[in-house]
Amino acid sequence: MNAISSDAGLAEPHLAEVLAAVGLDVEYVRAEGNTLYRLDEQQREAPVLDFVGGFGSLILGHNHPEIVTYAQDLLRSQLPIHAQFSRAAHADRLASALNSVLRRELGDDERYFAIFANSGAEAVEAAVKHAEFDRSLKLAALSEQIDAHVTQARSLVQGGLAVPADSAYARLDEAGPSGDPVQDLEELIAHVERWNAERLSTPPLFLAPEGAFHGKLVGSVQLTHNEAFRTPFKALAAQARFVPLDQPEAIRKTIDAERRVLLDLAVTDGAVTVVEREFPVFCAFVLEPIQGEGGINMVTREFAEAVRSACDAIGCPVVVDEIQSGMGRSGAFLASSLIGLRGDYYTLAKSLGGGVAKTSVVLIRESRYRREFELVHSSTFAKDGFSSLVALKVLELLEADGGRLYRVVAERGRSLRTMLETVRADFPDVLKDVRGAGLMLGVEFQDQSGSTAGAVRDFARSGFLGYAVAGYLLRRHAVRLFPTGSAANTLRLEPSVALTDDEISQLEAALRDVCSVLRDQDEGRFVGA
Amino acid sequence: MNAISSDAGLAEPHLAEVLAAVGLDVEYVRAEGNTLYRLDEQQREAPVLDFVGGFGSLILGHNHPEIVTYAQDLLRSQLPIHAQFSRAAHADRLASALNSVLRRELGDDERYFAIFANSGAEAVEAAVKHAEFDRSLKLAALSEQIDAHVTQARSLVQGGLAVPADSAYARLDEAGPSGDPVQDLEELIAHVERWNAERLSTPPLFLAPEGAFHGKLVGSVQLTHNEAFRTPFKALAAQARFVPLDQPEAIRKTIDAERRVLLDLAVTDGAVTVVEREFPVFCAFVLEPIQGEGGINMVTREFAEAVRSACDAIGCPVVVDEIQSGMGRSGAFLASSLIGLRGDYYTLAKSLGGGVAKTSVVLIRESRYRREFELVHSSTFAKDGFSSLVALKVLELLEADGGRLYRVVAERGRSLRTMLETVRADFPDVLKDVRGAGLMLGVEFQDQSGSTAGAVRDFARSGFLGYAVAGYLLRRHAVRLFPTGSAANTLRLEPSVALTDDEISQLEAALRDVCSVLRDQDEGRFVGA
Repeated sequence: MNAISSDAGLAEPHLAEVLAAVGLDVEYVRAEGNTLYRLDEQQREAPVLDFVGGFGSLILGHNHPEIVTYAQDLLRSQLPIHAQFSRAAHADRLASALNSVLRRELGDDERYFAIFANSGAEAVEAAVKHAEFDRSLKLAALSEQIDAHVTQARSLVQGGLAVPADSAYARLDEAGPSGDPVQDLEELIAHVERWNAERLSTPPLFLAPEGAFHGKLVGSVQLTHNEAFRTPFKALAAQARFVPLDQPEAIRKTIDAERRVLLDLAVTDGAVTVVEREFPVFCAFVLEPIQGEGGINMVTREFAEAVRSACDAIGCPVVVDEIQSGMGRSGAFLASSLIGLRGDYYTLAKSLGGGVAKTSVVLIRESRYRREFELVHSSTFAKDGFSSLVALKVLELLEADGGRLYRVVAERGRSLRTMLETVRADFPDVLKDVRGAGLMLGVEFQDQSGSTAGAVRDFARSGFLGYAVAGYLLRRHAVRLFPTGSAANTLRLEPSVALTDDEISQLEAALRDVCSVLRDQDEGRFVGA
Repeated sequence: MNAISSDAGLAEPHLAEVLAAVGLDVEYVRAEGNTLYRLDEQQREAPVLDFVGGFGSLILGHNHPEIVTYAQDLLRSQLPIHAQFSRAAHADRLASALNSVLRRELGDDERYFAIFANSGAEAVEAAVKHAEFDRSLKLAALSEQIDAHVTQARSLVQGGLAVPADSAYARLDEAGPSGDPVQDLEELIAHVERWNAERLSTPPLFLAPEGAFHGKLVGSVQLTHNEAFRTPFKALAAQARFVPLDQPEAIRKTIDAERRVLLDLAVTDGAVTVVEREFPVFCAFVLEPIQGEGGINMVTREFAEAVRSACDAIGCPVVVDEIQSGMGRSGAFLASSLIGLRGDYYTLAKSLGGGVAKTSVVLIRESRYRREFELVHSSTFAKDGFSSLVALKVLELLEADGGRLYRVVAERGRSLRTMLETVRADFPDVLKDVRGAGLMLGVEFQDQSGSTAGAVRDFARSGFLGYAVAGYLLRRHAVRLFPTGSAANTLRLEPSVALTDDEISQLEAALRDVCSVLRDQDEGRFVGA
């Protein structure tokens, strides 16, 4: 490609510098199972044991042979990848397959309609849009009802069949009744319309737990709790109210604090009165059953029940974001089914593409689904045959042998967790907590911001301890792990289902070493090459 | 996959019904070059000549053999697809290659930094976020300056070295000077701070031409002019002001109508005065050099110049959206270079992935680039080795032989256009206009809402004439064409560079036939099977 000269460092050079500062700027040349290969100084492949797993995208491992062979076959077959606005038979088959899995998992026959997208964040954007579309249709219906009631009241008062009730004026600030029922009613109507117009012009709100992560596009980033990611962009999109994950009782309080009513007119026994109608302030409650970026925090059954009942009380949909926790990662297809949480919407991505394709979906239950949405939302790249068929193959592998894979995930997860608990028991001064489910585990380090070792303290105080630990583990033990995005002291483990006992042992040795180094405040070894 | 039962019609069934109503619900089973294959009643492959071309994603055609073979080789090589937070060498090479192409095309050495994403809309979201990040940093700097000036004025007045100027009170509504300079200054400061706080709390605005289309995610859909796509979601995100594409003078008027100032204090010759500082209301002007969904409308050189100079005057970045028009589609790498428009940001997607991979990018010139953005924005699926290498291969094919492909696009585009102009000359009562550049052409049909043929009239009045024509062309001539998203009377033609004279002839016969049918108001033939 002789026309194109070299001009290095233009794809996020600042990020590359940050990675280089802790020794993470490694180039990987091949990937298989739980292993990434780098080249050593002699240009030979050197294995690195990968517990990052594409941030949860690789429940089947890097380059799973069946998926890779199948993807090659699809390409060789000249499958149409771009055939927009035709019968999307493969996407339709995938939607059916997802429904079968949900039906088995939820024990319920209600159908879920599928809107496909290309990334996890895009699926959240589609969910957000659908929820707002639904809210706007509800609002339009409500406004129409109120208009009809106003018209009816006007006609009754003009015909002398009704008069505004005295109590109706309680809402009027300025003047009392003038004595002319028609004039009084018009004053009442003007007040009601002003009041309603003000509420109708306010943007909707979303609800989410503290620690939430739902992506970084314009809408989804506002559902992401991390302030560094969210606040620079808060003027761009509708906001969320965040609820502490350990305070289920805070959900209703938060909702009550934001509740607003529209005013409506009712005519009873010849009297026109003002009545309140619930204004749908909230678009959706969006939550991950296991918070990934937030630090591998499990939503409790109590919190999930409180979300469900608070949302049911105000008719607000619950969007269960299974982008990282779903697709078998937790030991069940949906992590939410472990805590009995039923979603009105589910988002899936990451492992849905089998580590090869980019695809995602929001599934919306029939009773909440607005079919008109299909005519206002679309994506050139979504619903394509290639990613749909790859995702079908992934589901086939997950569901094979009566769901054997889920059981293996649960068993491998227990083995991994047992090892982590053992190390933690030996280093309680270094490791604070082990948590998660299946193969979505977190290891929280004790705060080191009071460390006597300067470098350790500096990393801890600047929020980079997790990355420094990651750099150490990679340099010394060829083990790849990262902290979660918003809880920098928690290392996240998301290996594939093919995790072996040897791999667990390799991680154990690496963890015990870094724990010793931190216990000994061995700064030289910690930062050394 | 025996665990998964059949449950058809869950992936957008309503859209499928709409397509079926005009006979577009065809399933395609293979694709190659400009041809999609369906199965006929004997289950034999029947070719359909495709002018939709993945809405511009297929400048190299369906399943281009070199791309497909290369993609298979990449998969076979076990290339790491998920290696987040490592050295993204392939994405970096792609960024370099894109810079080389831009350097050649723009005749300028300024570098462009690359933020990769997965779809066109995601690239627009990243551009929107970066523009707002830039604006918020500018605002923070401005606020800091104002605070420093306030502190300085306070210290000078308290030290008896300055007094508030009488003219400063012109801005104060309530009270005149009290005679105590310190008290007066505090009143002035309170007023300035109230004024500024109010402006600072208003959301930013975007500028875009009428007819604009920039995607359908939460942020990008607000830059999309089509009301059906945009307005249901307008409460979710920052708004755009739309300017008529044929009125370059409207740009400054629109900007002036929204201009706002912050108040600042200045001390000159011992007098504290209130001065105005420009408030950055606008995040960005976003525009396509050739509007795709809006009806294949070319931005004129005059409009482009007016955008550039109006934006330069207020320091607002120009985002040139080349998602559909770029990658050689217009006969140049960037359609904007045909009209001398220089972008501060460029978005690319569609053909960047060669019809096989999902990838997109926003390129941001160095003088506008905020490197801190790299630490607050990311995507699990973006920057992957697979899509980066496929995109590099696409650039290699485009740039080969000194850019031979661009010349072929231009020449094929001229042949196609000449044919369209000839048909139009023969059917001026049916075809209203032919426009576009290279292989991005539009054929506008005359309005048929006054047709004496009931079905034609009904389709025209409901905005579905273009789809009905598409259905006819597919049924009768095995030619696939669609109207643009927001200009339903304009058919869009985006074939690949491999377009042959025979394919042009096949389209000509099909177009002449549908023109005859419409001229003859032959309703039976038009809607018949």
